[in-house]
Amino acid sequence: MINILGAYATKFGELWNISPRALAKEVMENALKSFGLKASQIDALFVGNMLSGILGNQTNLGSLVAEELGVQIPAFRIEGACASGGLALHNAINSLKAGQYKTVLVLGIEKMTDHSQDEITTALMAAGSDEERMAGSTFPGVYALMAQAYMRKYSVSEEDLAAVSVKNHYHGSLNPKAQFQSPITIADVMKSSKIADPLKLLDCSPISDGAAAVVITSENTIRKVKKPIQIVASEVATDTLSLHDRKSFTSLSAVVEASGKAYRKAGIKSGDIDVAEIHDCFSISEAIATEDLGFSEKGHGAKDIAQGRRTLSNGDIICNPSGGLKACGHPVGATGIKQIVEITEQLRGEAGKKQVKGAKIGLTHNVGGSGTVAVIHILQN
Amino acid sequence: MINILGAYATKFGELWNISPRALAKEVMENALKSFGLKASQIDALFVGNMLSGILGNQTNLGSLVAEELGVQIPAFRIEGACASGGLALHNAINSLKAGQYKTVLVLGIEKMTDHSQDEITTALMAAGSDEERMAGSTFPGVYALMAQAYMRKYSVSEEDLAAVSVKNHYHGSLNPKAQFQSPITIADVMKSSKIADPLKLLDCSPISDGAAAVVITSENTIRKVKKPIQIVASEVATDTLSLHDRKSFTSLSAVVEASGKAYRKAGIKSGDIDVAEIHDCFSISEAIATEDLGFSEKGHGAKDIAQGRRTLSNGDIICNPSGGLKACGHPVGATGIKQIVEITEQLRGEAGKKQVKGAKIGLTHNVGGSGTVAVIHILQN
Repeated sequence: MINILGAYATKFGELWNISPRALAKEVMENALKSFGLKASQIDALFVGNMLSGILGNQTNLGSLVAEELGVQIPAFRIEGACASGGLALHNAINSLKAGQYKTVLVLGIEKMTDHSQDEITTALMAAGSDEERMAGSTFPGVYALMAQAYMRKYSVSEEDLAAVSVKNHYHGSLNPKAQFQSPITIADVMKSSKIADPLKLLDCSPISDGAAAVVITSENTIRKVKKPIQIVASEVATDTLSLHDRKSFTSLSAVVEASGKAYRKAGIKSGDIDVAEIHDCFSISEAIATEDLGFSEKGHGAKDIAQGRRTLSNGDIICNPSGGLKACGHPVGATGIKQIVEITEQLRGEAGKKQVKGAKIGLTHNVGGSGTVAVIHILQN
Repeated sequence: MINILGAYATKFGELWNISPRALAKEVMENALKSFGLKASQIDALFVGNMLSGILGNQTNLGSLVAEELGVQIPAFRIEGACASGGLALHNAINSLKAGQYKTVLVLGIEKMTDHSQDEITTALMAAGSDEERMAGSTFPGVYALMAQAYMRKYSVSEEDLAAVSVKNHYHGSLNPKAQFQSPITIADVMKSSKIADPLKLLDCSPISDGAAAVVITSENTIRKVKKPIQIVASEVATDTLSLHDRKSFTSLSAVVEASGKAYRKAGIKSGDIDVAEIHDCFSISEAIATEDLGFSEKGHGAKDIAQGRRTLSNGDIICNPSGGLKACGHPVGATGIKQIVEITEQLRGEAGKKQVKGAKIGLTHNVGGSGTVAVIHILQN
């Protein structure tokens, strides 16, 4: 039985005044404090991070971060592009189930905005395939291909896709830690600059700094757990690096596979989910994800979102109450752990204005590359 | 019970004619073939790699490598500087003990020589601390400080340290996969160029390309295991990034701690070890390691090596029969896994000219940074 104890995320955004070390320290200390824990109660540290090597010329981040926590404990950096956070949690959970450690801290962290756009774009394409890079593509370009295929196949309009961003900005407006807290309209999305047709600026998640941390334990004795939240499934699946190697451009098989396994492990169906944090790196991503996760029928993901079925407070399965990657922000290594923090707060009934009423079962959907890796966690209160 | 099935390492050296992808493919296919396994029998993939992001602008290496294996399975890149290989194995073992996966492949890989010396030196210092970098130090510089402290404290000569390299080149001369297969003399070491006083060129491990892979399983049913080799302990410990933050310059506390735990888990004493692969990134490293591991009394590590106590075939605890990092080579992410491959071959009695007679218990010692992280594995036949 894996219980979540402390959970904390920093504000996401352009955090010019804080170093990566200080950011790590802040979020780890707050995650501990949020549950009355001490660093000495932590047996090991798992860090999800994609870019500290490329952008910061800093490797060995696990040990660096352990220093900031003030304890010398086993420490690991886990990397799988934008799914690094979720993969770090998966490995942390395995270490508890193995009996190797009893209580561990999982940190997701990324510091991106101190670099030029060119540097960041090149660094992010490090998760792409050789062919995509040689063709001069970027991730907006790759996801735009999926959007084109999806819109054509299911007669979906640009406005339907835009509804994803509008929903997520509305949710972000309820989240004091979101990078963007202003609501936007379909018209705002439609008139924003084209990035990669049909995706426009407001279809894309931003470049962000931020960190998030959770403390998980296999022990119930460490502290009498008030509002216990359990992680009941942690599943990973992969797909090809390149989009062109896949059978379908309108479904991510890694998501279908990982979520299918996770539902079976948790003994639930997709319809049992009350709230989900979705990896909406682009508007099209969330539309497809809600189908791959079984929330919407094939071809109906974007339309269901446009009809309010994923929106607070009247939807059936609320997606991205935090504002998602689009509005809350996307510091890549931090994203998978921020999703866990958000769902934990939701299931504890501590999510403030963005609370999904009576949420009992939550899901996180963390994706790396263009659907190359998918990590699904299911949480229950 | 964790059993080692297939195990394989490529030749280490300057491998100009092979890409990282092809290198990964070669070593994974051979690790499978060496035990009559198929890729479809592998549940997950753990990749130890330090520099593919910085030097190759390639992240998401787990999924990339899964592609080369021809299977879409959960895949993880684990990074902890030069201990990345050992840390990948540690996480892989936890995933088996957790029951999450049953048979997994662990790959260590690094491609370093296609880059300028400046690029490599900068990239390697990514594992160092801010202070060490700002002072203009490099890892030879940091280890030279340890060597100076050690030589002064224990009246050890440069010739005593040189004996480490002489021993390891002798062992390398017996290893057809070693980067350097020529024996050297104390005089050769003494007259080689100064790198960071008192360390000379022949006190330092080289820049290398290479890969190594092992298949481990928690099942005995996957195939009737001939010559079963078990991993009976896998322990990790960390220390500060910076040398100047430590209590001692002549002992690595992470090694003492991790090996202490590993001996307790395995139920053995240091004296029970027949053969060990040691992380001799510099001659001083092996001298100190043999003390921290309990093979030699404090201050006697280098002298015991100089007296032949770690040399094939008459020593008591044989260290680095492969030639170690010094002679076999040091493709950083691959090193921790190559050590496992070597000990597996030793315990199976398949190590050829470098066979340690009757070896029953072996140890691997994989270190990241200047002793910032240590990973100890104990294997038994």
